Amino acid sequence: MLGNFTYCNPTKLYFGKNALDGLAQELPKYGKRVLLVYGGGSIKKNGIYERVISILKACGKEVFEDAGVMPNPTTEKLEEGVARARAAKAEFILAVGGGSVCDYAKAVSVSVHYEGDAWKKYFIDFDEPTCPTLPVGCVLTMVGTGSEMNGGSVITNHSEKLKIGHVFGEEVFPKFSILNPEYTFTVPRYQMISGIYDIMSHILEQYFSGTDDNTSDYVMEGLLRSLIHSADVAAENPTDYEARSNIMWTATWALNTFVAQGKDTDWEVHMLGQAVAAHTDATHGMTLAAVSLPYYRHILPYGTAKFARYAKAVWEVDPAGKTEREVAEEGLRRMEAWMKKLGLVMNISELGATPEMLEGIVESTLVMEGGYKVLTKEEIRAIIKASY
Amino acid sequence: MLGNFTYCNPTKLYFGKNALDGLAQELPKYGKRVLLVYGGGSIKKNGIYERVISILKACGKEVFEDAGVMPNPTTEKLEEGVARARAAKAEFILAVGGGSVCDYAKAVSVSVHYEGDAWKKYFIDFDEPTCPTLPVGCVLTMVGTGSEMNGGSVITNHSEKLKIGHVFGEEVFPKFSILNPEYTFTVPRYQMISGIYDIMSHILEQYFSGTDDNTSDYVMEGLLRSLIHSADVAAENPTDYEARSNIMWTATWALNTFVAQGKDTDWEVHMLGQAVAAHTDATHGMTLAAVSLPYYRHILPYGTAKFARYAKAVWEVDPAGKTEREVAEEGLRRMEAWMKKLGLVMNISELGATPEMLEGIVESTLVMEGGYKVLTKEEIRAIIKASY
Repeated sequence: MLGNFTYCNPTKLYFGKNALDGLAQELPKYGKRVLLVYGGGSIKKNGIYERVISILKACGKEVFEDAGVMPNPTTEKLEEGVARARAAKAEFILAVGGGSVCDYAKAVSVSVHYEGDAWKKYFIDFDEPTCPTLPVGCVLTMVGTGSEMNGGSVITNHSEKLKIGHVFGEEVFPKFSILNPEYTFTVPRYQMISGIYDIMSHILEQYFSGTDDNTSDYVMEGLLRSLIHSADVAAENPTDYEARSNIMWTATWALNTFVAQGKDTDWEVHMLGQAVAAHTDATHGMTLAAVSLPYYRHILPYGTAKFARYAKAVWEVDPAGKTEREVAEEGLRRMEAWMKKLGLVMNISELGATPEMLEGIVESTLVMEGGYKVLTKEEIRAIIKASY
Repeated sequence: MLGNFTYCNPTKLYFGKNALDGLAQELPKYGKRVLLVYGGGSIKKNGIYERVISILKACGKEVFEDAGVMPNPTTEKLEEGVARARAAKAEFILAVGGGSVCDYAKAVSVSVHYEGDAWKKYFIDFDEPTCPTLPVGCVLTMVGTGSEMNGGSVITNHSEKLKIGHVFGEEVFPKFSILNPEYTFTVPRYQMISGIYDIMSHILEQYFSGTDDNTSDYVMEGLLRSLIHSADVAAENPTDYEARSNIMWTATWALNTFVAQGKDTDWEVHMLGQAVAAHTDATHGMTLAAVSLPYYRHILPYGTAKFARYAKAVWEVDPAGKTEREVAEEGLRRMEAWMKKLGLVMNISELGATPEMLEGIVESTLVMEGGYKVLTKEEIRAIIKASY
């Protein structure tokens, strides 16, 4: 049911081949001292770095660099970034990269003016910022997380073997995001399909929750159909602009809070996948792909009607002559076949998990309460084993 | 194709049974002198007026009333409202009502500080505001137009026999809107189903445009399925909270610019319907219903593939053994049967159009260029005659 909620998403999006033109429109609104955050340097190879720098300079900004943000940003990197931002007296953070870079920029934003242990405050205690935050803007170069239009930030603590996400309120949302689908053309195929599954998981983890079906469920079915269609096209031709633009746009709307309205939301697949990543440092979307089907097959008996609806609406399963359970199971079989065809990693052993790690992964998995079944430790163990 | 666009929708929504609690959170952000805009007084019968007044008083506001906004707000009323707002030195406009009241509030907002002819500037020349505008907030009591989360404003000039809408930029969007589905329970059935068809037309007029299909098309199919499902429930039981809340939420997303991205958008049905209203003053959604099928049947040959997709995705037409054209036509037949069952008015004679009016309606119909066929005057005449 659509209960009581507030909805506000003030992020301004510039979309399309000319999206970067928006940067020059936005920068004058913010201070002169800019922390430029990016990853391993691919933006220097594809020319995006130079274009961004020239716009920053033309807008009279003083640029302080914070490079080397890794795919799963760590607490150590966060501390380094906070120190850099403080030393630079940064007034604005420009994140150029994928979801990890955006996530990291938000984590720096809420930590710069906080004197205590930011990891503990935001990712263990799930506190809201009580200090001033720095405005963040984003130039997106990889697609999946939806971080470009939400308050989400995921940080990994290797010493504690934890990878945890905090969804901040709208004051931490990027003020603007630059979305040029062409920037994603050069992303390696492994990252592309990993991102596609991250999007799919975002939608499914909201869809498979709640006791009723409302407008959000119908919209999510539309987003899923669009994603599957465009993924198939992009898998054949990664530079198909239309497919990549639809994937980019679907990613944004899969996790910008719109389709969450009226839904309990689950996120147990993310908890399982994040536990795998905390031990293996594997690519985010692949960790989700590897645990999804064991999880969904486990909870199917607790949400059979919804899985059957999914099978019909998204995978076009013909229900004639089948029980609801059979329809539901056929939907997951079609999903599995599609995932394999796309090239997703279907088990965690391929992601570097070893038998010795399994119990640690079980221990690192947080238990959520929004899905069809609140998992026991024993159930988590069974799902992790089935994912191996 | 998703081309170049910017997307920003900063309106804050408070949704649900407790939505009015949001009013006290928002009012302190705005000035003391509030122009309270509403319609024919139904808000005094159902208690909403009293609740709003008590919150305004509790927030220390000075309230200046501007009542009597009619279903199709006129240029004369607009002039009166501007005079009231000026006399009151209003700093904020609170619209309490349906789409007409919201539309009117925005028209007053952009006209208060404009000395010239606002009708000419905004609705004939489609100029943007060049003067300061007043912030607008909205308490919605009727559903359909989507005016609660967009820049749209429709004004009727009876002396010129024109009803014209202007879609303003984001600075004219309501700063916030209060959406309590229970407020719509007491709306008469005629208005309820008229609003439902207005929502449907908003979606269809964006859906039936453009040469390709993108994420927006898939999302619109989801919105349409949700709307049809909830309309059927609400028609049986108008106080079904879940159905009314889904209709309310669908209305907002049907016309808040989200699903327009990547679409040419048509709006010819609105042009036809608005011409009918300019001559008959009939209820908005009913004018759209009465002209829709003659229009869609006329343009079907120019967009057969999309009409066939619509038939399958929304009306579950089985394509087996049918040509694409037959599938497309079967979709419109199912839509027609559904419209009749819901109780929509299917011809303009029932809306008060007389044979003498027809040529005037043809003359008042603006021609749009975003649909599958740019209509000639002769085609408009044929559609109006077929709608009679």
